[in-house]
Amino acid sequence: MSKQITIVIAGPRGKMGREAVNMVNETPHFTLSAVIDSRHAGMKLKDLEGMPSLDIPVYDDATLCFSEIRPDVLIDLTKPEIGKVHLEQALEHNVRPVIGTTGFSDEDLERLKNLAQEKELGAIIAPNFAVGAILMMKFAQMASKYLPDVEIIEKHHDQKLDAPSGTALKTAQLIREVREPKSQGHPDEREDLPGARGAELDGIRIHSVRLPGLVAHQEVILGGEGQTLTIKHDSMNRASFMPGVKMAVEAVVNVDHLVYGLENIIE
Amino acid sequence: MSKQITIVIAGPRGKMGREAVNMVNETPHFTLSAVIDSRHAGMKLKDLEGMPSLDIPVYDDATLCFSEIRPDVLIDLTKPEIGKVHLEQALEHNVRPVIGTTGFSDEDLERLKNLAQEKELGAIIAPNFAVGAILMMKFAQMASKYLPDVEIIEKHHDQKLDAPSGTALKTAQLIREVREPKSQGHPDEREDLPGARGAELDGIRIHSVRLPGLVAHQEVILGGEGQTLTIKHDSMNRASFMPGVKMAVEAVVNVDHLVYGLENIIE
Amino acid sequence: MSKQITIVIAGPRGKMGREAVNMVNETPHFTLSAVIDSRHAGMKLKDLEGMPSLDIPVYDDATLCFSEIRPDVLIDLTKPEIGKVHLEQALEHNVRPVIGTTGFSDEDLERLKNLAQEKELGAIIAPNFAVGAILMMKFAQMASKYLPDVEIIEKHHDQKLDAPSGTALKTAQLIREVREPKSQGHPDEREDLPGARGAELDGIRIHSVRLPGLVAHQEVILGGEGQTLTIKHDSMNRASFMPGVKMAVEAVVNVDHLVYGLENIIE
Amino acid sequence: MSKQITIVIAGPRGKMGREAVNMVNETPHFTLSAVIDSRHAGMKLKDLEGMPSLDIPVYDDATLCFSEIRPDVLIDLTKPEIGKVHLEQALEHNVRPVIGTTGFSDEDLERLKNLAQEKELGAIIAPNFAVGAILMMKFAQMASKYLPDVEIIEKHHDQKLDAPSGTALKTAQLIREVREPKSQGHPDEREDLPGARGAELDGIRIHSVRLPGLVAHQEVILGGEGQTLTIKHDSMNRASFMPGVKMAVEAVVNVDHLVYGLENIIE
Repeated sequence: MSKQITIVIAGPRGKMGREAVNMVNETPHFTLSAVIDSRHAGMKLKDLEGMPSLDIPVYDDATLCFSEIRPDVLIDLTKPEIGKVHLEQALEHNVRPVIGTTGFSDEDLERLKNLAQEKELGAIIAPNFAVGAILMMKFAQMASKYLPDVEIIEKHHDQKLDAPSGTALKTAQLIREVREPKSQGHPDEREDLPGARGAELDGIRIHSVRLPGLVAHQEVILGGEGQTLTIKHDSMNRASFMPGVKMAVEAVVNVDHLVYGLENIIE
Repeated sequence: MSKQITIVIAGPRGKMGREAVNMVNETPHFTLSAVIDSRHAGMKLKDLEGMPSLDIPVYDDATLCFSEIRPDVLIDLTKPEIGKVHLEQALEHNVRPVIGTTGFSDEDLERLKNLAQEKELGAIIAPNFAVGAILMMKFAQMASKYLPDVEIIEKHHDQKLDAPSGTALKTAQLIREVREPKSQGHPDEREDLPGARGAELDGIRIHSVRLPGLVAHQEVILGGEGQTLTIKHDSMNRASFMPGVKMAVEAVVNVDHLVYGLENIIE
Repeated sequence: MSKQITIVIAGPRGKMGREAVNMVNETPHFTLSAVIDSRHAGMKLKDLEGMPSLDIPVYDDATLCFSEIRPDVLIDLTKPEIGKVHLEQALEHNVRPVIGTTGFSDEDLERLKNLAQEKELGAIIAPNFAVGAILMMKFAQMASKYLPDVEIIEKHHDQKLDAPSGTALKTAQLIREVREPKSQGHPDEREDLPGARGAELDGIRIHSVRLPGLVAHQEVILGGEGQTLTIKHDSMNRASFMPGVKMAVEAVVNVDHLVYGLENIIE
Repeated sequence: MSKQITIVIAGPRGKMGREAVNMVNETPHFTLSAVIDSRHAGMKLKDLEGMPSLDIPVYDDATLCFSEIRPDVLIDLTKPEIGKVHLEQALEHNVRPVIGTTGFSDEDLERLKNLAQEKELGAIIAPNFAVGAILMMKFAQMASKYLPDVEIIEKHHDQKLDAPSGTALKTAQLIREVREPKSQGHPDEREDLPGARGAELDGIRIHSVRLPGLVAHQEVILGGEGQTLTIKHDSMNRASFMPGVKMAVEAVVNVDHLVYGLENIIE
């Protein structure tokens, strides 16, 4: 049985905020204790339009909220400049932050990393909560240690301008970090039509398909003698990010340092 | 119920010849009437090692065989120079030839085409009996009339030197023959890594994957608004060619001219 | 170069009608000559809201339209009771109808078949214009003649109540029509967990997957010695039906009888 | 850079033993220090037929070998009764064993587990070195924590008698261990043909496809709102097990207890 986790959500009225309120409310071992909202301070959540009828307070001051509520975790789905402030305030009040905003500089990350370490508190910054894509990248990286010959095929609708996709590039970079250096394919292979063998990043071939009817798809194929292993992610529409938020909440209570990127907490 | 077809096989002791003898013997509406073999003339098939115990004659002279047996169809699985001669002799004796040998020049084809037309007899030359690959190419061509945005991904083991594969090139050429001219992808698309969008033949993109553990695979993806249609062929080992031989025999009795290539008889 | 085809569209203001107006307008060898609309008779198409600025007449009387315009083809995207009447009126005025409505009884079809035959005119009734699914079924049927071992996997979102899908059943029925009777799998195979081998229709196994994140997908796998051929259709959203309408228009001018179902005109 | 690991191989003349000798010899951070062979004691490896020309000793007595050579790791590819003995002898001489034989009883495992713990030494028993299949199972298990709706499709040649495959069952069991209990599909879903929805293990649906031309394939599909993640393993022939052996050697030096099954060491 999972341990109960008390949670405060900042930005509950945004698109992702509303989904997060519902997700926390519906997860048995999560308890929503308060929300942080720039408006409506002093009201109850149940008084806000479209919210579940929970008799919990609305704060506009994050530090006051943390002092009075003392939650285990903050889920922040606000804006870059606000998320950064909330992260720091949370750590200072011994609340573990899960921050879904972007815009952190290397200096920000360095400073916040030190702060988390000093407080011995977990903190997670997740610029991307798309758990399926993150699992794909993570598994591809793990598998490439044992099956180091890899090619990536990504497929998108024909309105996409750039090739390869950012996810394909990131996948190749993650694989490069762990596998032993190697050249792939036959040393004498040749392209009778240029481009047939795709783009190359450190020996990893990447192929970009663009067709009407496609949405956003990627498969990573790892080949070994007599076998192939394929990790494939198909995104049919703007995916729900709630499985990723849930993953982050469950992880943040079990770490004692700052983690940047969900791919680093998958166990 | 299928009409009974009487058949003579030339080259019954070769690898494909043996398989063809068995296939004809096991197909209810096929009857094996004789074989043509450079040795063993005057013997019975059942006397030859490893052959089914059929009491049918072995000839070394094709014209004698055709005169005496008067089969509907000749299946020739001999050698290029012999297959060419047998084809002509068959037509002259009103036997419809299915020839599995290669090496026909354009002049040969022209002359044999005229001969078949004059005799109003079907004749099939099939340099490739791999029916799965032929069906894939045929279907891709047919579908491209209605879903003209097409990309091809072919995957082979990493010992293959050339890219793209011959089958991928032939598929693209077949599609080019029938679809209206078009440019694919977004006019402003760009490759951030060169080669990402693959090779191009008349706007059709071809991607070649090379990995250990792969054998010989190709998929043709046709995209339309909100949908994709994929035709995929996986060849696990040197495929049996008998479905292709059977297809040719059944087709040759229904045509009255020379056909070059199995892709032209699929109905 | 394709022959020019003059076209009248009935029901131009419906969802499919609007798409058809645009498709015809944008297809070089199609000419839109008039539309039939229960309202707006006597106006020009360009005067109707959201229509392309074409100076062509709007009729409410189909017979008057056919007499004055003498188009090659009628595309009818109205309602069942109206489509049926238009079909008959078109044939009587030597116009070839492409009817996208449903609700034809066996008696209707018999009568209209005789009428088309008598007039020696092509006519197409297409209850389903989803060309990708129709191509998949057609190809699966064609291929099963040569690779008669077949299994079907269909995958849908987990809100779908029935299994197998209608398309999977129809695919199996089409295959059953053409392949020689056969039992598939090993005669001694056993299910250690009931249902593992799927549903069965005449020896063809059908497997239904239901998961969130899926939309509507089907693959037909045909196996032969050493190879498999897979025909796969992925439908991402309510597909555009225009490729199917276009296919029907091009086919109807080349046939001289009534065709029911697009699957019967794919060449 | 990887730390250098010294290795002794028992059973170097068997099929897997020969491959292991070559793998160790070709891996930069592995050093082959000796082999254990029931024959040829006192000779050098280079004197054995078909072996690489390494000037390292051949022992027939494992304990003598361990005392004199003091390797980091033993790779044992002998027979069940011998592997069991070698495992114990290795631990007693502070050598970490990687055992590829089967036949361990629960009592054996309990006793050996205690021995490893007492010696604070890593030890790995791997009844299956097929790393691709093991990675697939592991990843499916990991992903099911975040995307708990899962179905399994396994495909094999039509000579396979049992369904579902052992790998499919094991995969479902591994997923059951970690995901929260749940029922999948719509509560009102129905099978219009029995078996369509496959076999069921704790709500996880398993579908078994059997066709000629297939070899051994499995895909695990995990669905979430708007996305699916697919983990697929294709085994083209009796796979090389060397990536799995290598994985085990690298893991055994980093653990301090007995591990049963490669799936428990993937990191």
